Amino acid sequence: FAGFSLFSILVVLLLMKSSSGAAESSAVNPCCYYPCQNRGVCVRFGTENYSCDCTRTGFHGKNCTTPEFWTRIYLMLKPSSGAVHFFLTHFKWFWTIINNSFLRDTFMRIVLTVRNELIPSPPTYNTKYEYISWESYNNLSYYTRLLPPIPKDCPLPMGTKGKPNLPDPKEFCEKYFKRREFRPDPQGTNLMFAFMAQHFTHQFFKKSHKATVGFTKALGHGVDASNIYGEELERQHQLRLHKDGKLKYQLINGEMYPPMVSEVPVDMVYPEGFPTEQRLAVGQEVFGLVPGLTMYATIWLREHNRVCDILKGEHPTWEDEQLFQTTRLIIIGEIINIIIEEYVQHLSGYHLKLKYDPSLLFGVRFQYTNRIALEFSHLYHWHPLMPDSFLIDGEEIPYSQFLYNTSILTHYGVEKLVDAFSRQSAGQIGGGRNIHQAVLRVPEILIRDSRAARLQPFNQYRKRFNLKPYSSFYELTGKLVKLYALLFVLYVSVLPCDEMSICPGSTPRLAQLHTGFYIYKVNVVVENNLYLHEKVETRQIYRI
Amino acid sequence: FAGFSLFSILVVLLLMKSSSGAAESSAVNPCCYYPCQNRGVCVRFGTENYSCDCTRTGFHGKNCTTPEFWTRIYLMLKPSSGAVHFFLTHFKWFWTIINNSFLRDTFMRIVLTVRNELIPSPPTYNTKYEYISWESYNNLSYYTRLLPPIPKDCPLPMGTKGKPNLPDPKEFCEKYFKRREFRPDPQGTNLMFAFMAQHFTHQFFKKSHKATVGFTKALGHGVDASNIYGEELERQHQLRLHKDGKLKYQLINGEMYPPMVSEVPVDMVYPEGFPTEQRLAVGQEVFGLVPGLTMYATIWLREHNRVCDILKGEHPTWEDEQLFQTTRLIIIGEIINIIIEEYVQHLSGYHLKLKYDPSLLFGVRFQYTNRIALEFSHLYHWHPLMPDSFLIDGEEIPYSQFLYNTSILTHYGVEKLVDAFSRQSAGQIGGGRNIHQAVLRVPEILIRDSRAARLQPFNQYRKRFNLKPYSSFYELTGKLVKLYALLFVLYVSVLPCDEMSICPGSTPRLAQLHTGFYIYKVNVVVENNLYLHEKVETRQIYRI
Repeated sequence: FAGFSLFSILVVLLLMKSSSGAAESSAVNPCCYYPCQNRGVCVRFGTENYSCDCTRTGFHGKNCTTPEFWTRIYLMLKPSSGAVHFFLTHFKWFWTIINNSFLRDTFMRIVLTVRNELIPSPPTYNTKYEYISWESYNNLSYYTRLLPPIPKDCPLPMGTKGKPNLPDPKEFCEKYFKRREFRPDPQGTNLMFAFMAQHFTHQFFKKSHKATVGFTKALGHGVDASNIYGEELERQHQLRLHKDGKLKYQLINGEMYPPMVSEVPVDMVYPEGFPTEQRLAVGQEVFGLVPGLTMYATIWLREHNRVCDILKGEHPTWEDEQLFQTTRLIIIGEIINIIIEEYVQHLSGYHLKLKYDPSLLFGVRFQYTNRIALEFSHLYHWHPLMPDSFLIDGEEIPYSQFLYNTSILTHYGVEKLVDAFSRQSAGQIGGGRNIHQAVLRVPEILIRDSRAARLQPFNQYRKRFNLKPYSSFYELTGKLVKLYALLFVLYVSVLPCDEMSICPGSTPRLAQLHTGFYIYKVNVVVENNLYLHEKVETRQIYRI
Repeated sequence: FAGFSLFSILVVLLLMKSSSGAAESSAVNPCCYYPCQNRGVCVRFGTENYSCDCTRTGFHGKNCTTPEFWTRIYLMLKPSSGAVHFFLTHFKWFWTIINNSFLRDTFMRIVLTVRNELIPSPPTYNTKYEYISWESYNNLSYYTRLLPPIPKDCPLPMGTKGKPNLPDPKEFCEKYFKRREFRPDPQGTNLMFAFMAQHFTHQFFKKSHKATVGFTKALGHGVDASNIYGEELERQHQLRLHKDGKLKYQLINGEMYPPMVSEVPVDMVYPEGFPTEQRLAVGQEVFGLVPGLTMYATIWLREHNRVCDILKGEHPTWEDEQLFQTTRLIIIGEIINIIIEEYVQHLSGYHLKLKYDPSLLFGVRFQYTNRIALEFSHLYHWHPLMPDSFLIDGEEIPYSQFLYNTSILTHYGVEKLVDAFSRQSAGQIGGGRNIHQAVLRVPEILIRDSRAARLQPFNQYRKRFNLKPYSSFYELTGKLVKLYALLFVLYVSVLPCDEMSICPGSTPRLAQLHTGFYIYKVNVVVENNLYLHEKVETRQIYRI
């Protein structure tokens, strides 16, 4: 009780401080208060005024708060996103009927279009441009952003609320993210899923270290299989056999593996002094880090070359280039198929059987162009998935022997790794305190990056996605009182998680939202591709 | 009569030759016969077979010739494109009513969507890839192509028909394109229009000379005003004043002009030995060639800086970057507005009053992404527009004193040039024999390029655009019997214009088709731009 009183006093003092602070300096940028609601855009006019641009929001008024007539009707009829989620994850009998009728297509189309509408296309802001500009539309080196950065001239780091000094990231990660005891994922997610996520996302998440924060090296901005074929054309040609469309490979114990860097001299990240004869060469330069990644690289390499053989049988007149390019499209189609029908299916928990069928969208309003968002990249840091150690073929392998150890792949082989990763539980993403010490530096860097990128407060993102803003830390931490107290002490602020902006690893629901929208935006090129589309034998179930 | 007999004999001989040639070599690539109709795609199977991919064409059968039920109904109800054109260019009283009612929006939406549907999005082929591939989708250095190149292994240059040796381009241009006597454009087009066309199109037509044919330097692939601001970011920054969002300028007799290269050292194409102090520096490196281009460059420079002033008045807190970027979007909006409501309006001859309003398309299926097509670039060579000499302020200026003469702009000033170019008639684009000797090298290079790019025969393009293929040269040349005879002799072939593929300068209707589709595809970024949108004072009427 005493503690509660102390908190109350602190809050009152801080609230007074921040409100008096705002009154003192009359030249505060009014957009620092985030006055515009319902996706209205804050634009400064004159020296002290602002105007909310409410165009096409369905609202009007000074702060876009007054719904138009049809918006009012729509809001009355529209179910909450919580209700929709509940509906999709319950009533199995109902969905069994739907899944076996033509209504599956209808529901899938609704899922795709509703999620797509949450994302602006063409893309809008980026870390440099907090307003619409040709440069942010045209320059693919930037990640796009769904909300513009916090204005640079705000009185406080997060705008006009929150602490003037944000907590130390390292200390915060120790307290909030560091695992005390392994908590398995309640949905039964396994390591096969975890490495699939890592392998898949690192074709479009490639933070550029050369420039400041907010830049990407993955200029394809989508599922282009650049993690298999390389981002640059030159790398692709180095990886290719230039015969029958195939990729280069080596045989170990009669099985196909990626070649070594000594054979295919592409840039790969390995620790200094790492033996040259153990350096595997694959499409993505960082994939030597984890055996789970080189395992997937091997699976896709084998699948690519298998498809080439089939295509060549059907089309003996096709040259290497056509076999390669067509196989690449097929591989991209296979990836998206697996991602939608198995990966997102598992992640969503939906009873609706998700469907990969580009033609679902041919008749409706839908933009195929995609641009990866910085926020998407930030919240996709699912490092709590990683276990305490790796259990392979009866042995327990610690991180120190797992990372940058390419011999794990070649020693055990793909089958044993798939078996092991399929059986081992991944950690729970949400709930805090579930990131292993070995990867704890990742959220720390993420927090630093999100501050440098001036990401808006968490609740601004809740509002952006039509979710009710949290009014207490309890809503974020649930019953984990310790974490609640921790956040409260560190951030004391009316809006929780103000600084972390999107709370890495703690908002799987929001993550799903993005994942869902994103993945469905990428079926671009396969649209007209009518060639082979067989079931892939490499598929795994991502659930134990 | 004797001549006619000779022709007949020649035809018979040639037909026999080509058909026997096809019978001899059984390994002819079957796609060389263009067997697939109605936009079906020819794919080789086995060593000698082909298959037409009829997916989503509305047709089926070996060669996609059998209409599906709904296609049959659609074809019965669909008016011919000739009928639609007639309807749109007649019945003025009817269109006056439409133009003043809400139906103007409806018709405009139909015009936009119907034309848009003619063009594939995402883009398909290019000069390297005659099949769908990730590379041709992703690599912006290529112009896209609506029809794939003629297969490399065909027995004849145009496939399986036509002459084995195509006529000499230079000789052909002399005979078919060279102007005998100036024929003014029957629609009353003036030089103001001609230079507008040249200035406008050279933001997205920038043939790359470094690589082989089919590559572009204009990676924006659309109306990005790169002709004003430069294609590269570095050039943009050199051209910018870095104050109040403005572009650098010089004052001559109190009027604003682009700066000299000595002040703004950007790459500009001028003849060797051209005085440094006369080299104007503008966004597009080749615009020093024609005073009409530097005139437009000056008009847009002035407009840009004028808009900056207005914006700064409204938003005194905005920095240089935001003023520049927002002005650029406004300029892009102004350009598209002028292009649709005045330029295309004039070109089309429609009585429907065309409308620039991005929101017309917000509710319908429409892809905003754009990719410039090689065919679009080829047929947009409207060099017959150029007159015999230039009449300015009572003086007659020959080409020799007009090209690469920047002092014409600075001597006469913008107002006198606008007055002169508005009064002087441009030449008729169609009909042949109307290109002035001074620019006759252009169609010659174009013919060479189109051969190198292996562009498909003209009639394949007619079919691609749902136009009836010509069955005689008469349909191309009309009553110009001499030209008919010429074409017949040069190409003797069942399908006319087989080699020229798209007959530069002779198919204004097809050109319009492209122009129309294209221009409406470019309102991408202004979609969300709600700032200033005033009437521009620089507009000109493109008709005498």
